[in-house]
Amino acid sequence: MGYALSAEPQPRIVEVGPRDGLQNESAVVSAEKKAAFVDALAKTGLKEIETGAFVSPQAVPQMADTAEVFAKIQRRPGVVYSALVPNQKGLERAMQAGADKISVFTAASETFNQKNIRASISESIERFRPVIRETKAARLPLRAYISTAFHCPYEGPVKPVAVLPIVKTLMGLGVDELSIGDTIGKASPRDVRSLLKPLLDIVPVEKLFLHFHDTYGMAIANALTAWREFGVTGFDSSTGGLGGCPYAPGASGNIATEDLVFALSAEGADMGIDIEKLTAAARALVPSLGHPLDSRLSRVASTGRHS
Amino acid sequence: MGYALSAEPQPRIVEVGPRDGLQNESAVVSAEKKAAFVDALAKTGLKEIETGAFVSPQAVPQMADTAEVFAKIQRRPGVVYSALVPNQKGLERAMQAGADKISVFTAASETFNQKNIRASISESIERFRPVIRETKAARLPLRAYISTAFHCPYEGPVKPVAVLPIVKTLMGLGVDELSIGDTIGKASPRDVRSLLKPLLDIVPVEKLFLHFHDTYGMAIANALTAWREFGVTGFDSSTGGLGGCPYAPGASGNIATEDLVFALSAEGADMGIDIEKLTAAARALVPSLGHPLDSRLSRVASTGRHS
Repeated sequence: MGYALSAEPQPRIVEVGPRDGLQNESAVVSAEKKAAFVDALAKTGLKEIETGAFVSPQAVPQMADTAEVFAKIQRRPGVVYSALVPNQKGLERAMQAGADKISVFTAASETFNQKNIRASISESIERFRPVIRETKAARLPLRAYISTAFHCPYEGPVKPVAVLPIVKTLMGLGVDELSIGDTIGKASPRDVRSLLKPLLDIVPVEKLFLHFHDTYGMAIANALTAWREFGVTGFDSSTGGLGGCPYAPGASGNIATEDLVFALSAEGADMGIDIEKLTAAARALVPSLGHPLDSRLSRVASTGRHS
Repeated sequence: MGYALSAEPQPRIVEVGPRDGLQNESAVVSAEKKAAFVDALAKTGLKEIETGAFVSPQAVPQMADTAEVFAKIQRRPGVVYSALVPNQKGLERAMQAGADKISVFTAASETFNQKNIRASISESIERFRPVIRETKAARLPLRAYISTAFHCPYEGPVKPVAVLPIVKTLMGLGVDELSIGDTIGKASPRDVRSLLKPLLDIVPVEKLFLHFHDTYGMAIANALTAWREFGVTGFDSSTGGLGGCPYAPGASGNIATEDLVFALSAEGADMGIDIEKLTAAARALVPSLGHPLDSRLSRVASTGRHS
């Protein structure tokens, strides 16, 4: 069981607040404020920001102005601005907007996939097969999300045996990285170990990102387990804990970037990310959101007591 | 690094919500409601409940009616009802009230001890030397708290070398168990490992309790580290996350019992504690507290979505 030494690869964070976070907020934030949020995040030390999604504005009104957000941001050299797309039309719009990287998504639970995107898992993969082909033709890097990889809000526990074939298919299609999601935040370190053991036999560790939600308070323990015991370095997180959990209104959603950065730093990681700037970036959105931020650090930081 | 197998000793929780939790709430809850809370907790499967403190009512008005709480509770066989005392007078009152177990307290930081109880560490130990003697004469079990064993809100990081001599002194005085506190919730699993390695050379593991706060979101990761890697089975927690953090108003305080039970159970522990009943016990206090509960589980449970 390897301790993550400083000579080992350091954790990398994909910030998903502007996309996965804001997509799950009931308030619709203006394109101007979203762009200001992305710009503030780009100054914290974060190297990748999922900036929006080119999805149906009827299905996801919160993301309807993603093209405008891309037009308004001040691009910072060295920062990757990615976009999520559901199909070829979304990909075209993402490329027009100048997205640096493309994300596609499916799930490990058939019921969840049907309810979320009205497609079976294999239909969803067929649907983004041409998206992957065109993304690669355009020489853009490609990420694939697999949601409900530990628990499904409809089906309950999801076994690794359900996740691994999807991973194999996606790796065979040539995706550059995978984001494995604990969509309802119910995974424990034991679940993380059960999945990572077989998963890392088929995915190079540097292509793997874990996307934890903190609904049940397990996200930090899960992330530290993955980093310390398996050397996983890729994590998704949402500054300010934006987004909540659509399956448990009022509960926590995505792991907060500031909480994750604090935890990994406390365990010895060299993150190079400014926690004060993260919480300040999210705090500027509070008037638009209509609720306080949902991260442990933002609550301590507001008292000026955490240094 | 030993995995906690089911044949190994299971985790034990000391519920500190009625004492450490309510003591740090700004609202004063009536003795009747406190007793109802303790009675509800005793029906969840918890085996020990710190029921109150016999301290100065001027210093801690929230605990002024602890004798009344002891008089009102319906004692459940097999449940230990303990009380915290600062001196011999407090001990006499605790024994009159019928406390099953006595707790005394000091800290590993001189500055914290001075500000908290106006005594140096060694003065505080001198002060409870007769308390320990009389408690042992009465054949009551005795617990000693050591606060700020990882970080001090005034002095910053606290090194194991500052904690170990206090532990040795207390063990020499014959205390039956120690509760080692991360008072401002800033410890990381790395800090836990640093302290537990030397600590377990001088304290039998069954006499050790860890008292984590979740201010920075690290409490679950810390508890799982202590259990999995060191076989620590004793943990303090506060149902509903009652109490907050006096050093960072608005921030989280004690680790919530329901979150801890969920996490340990998810990692394979057989806790025998009913999470639904825990959150219901705390929810009954919400009108008196004037704020929502501060636990991850209570927020999910309120949606009925966590089963």
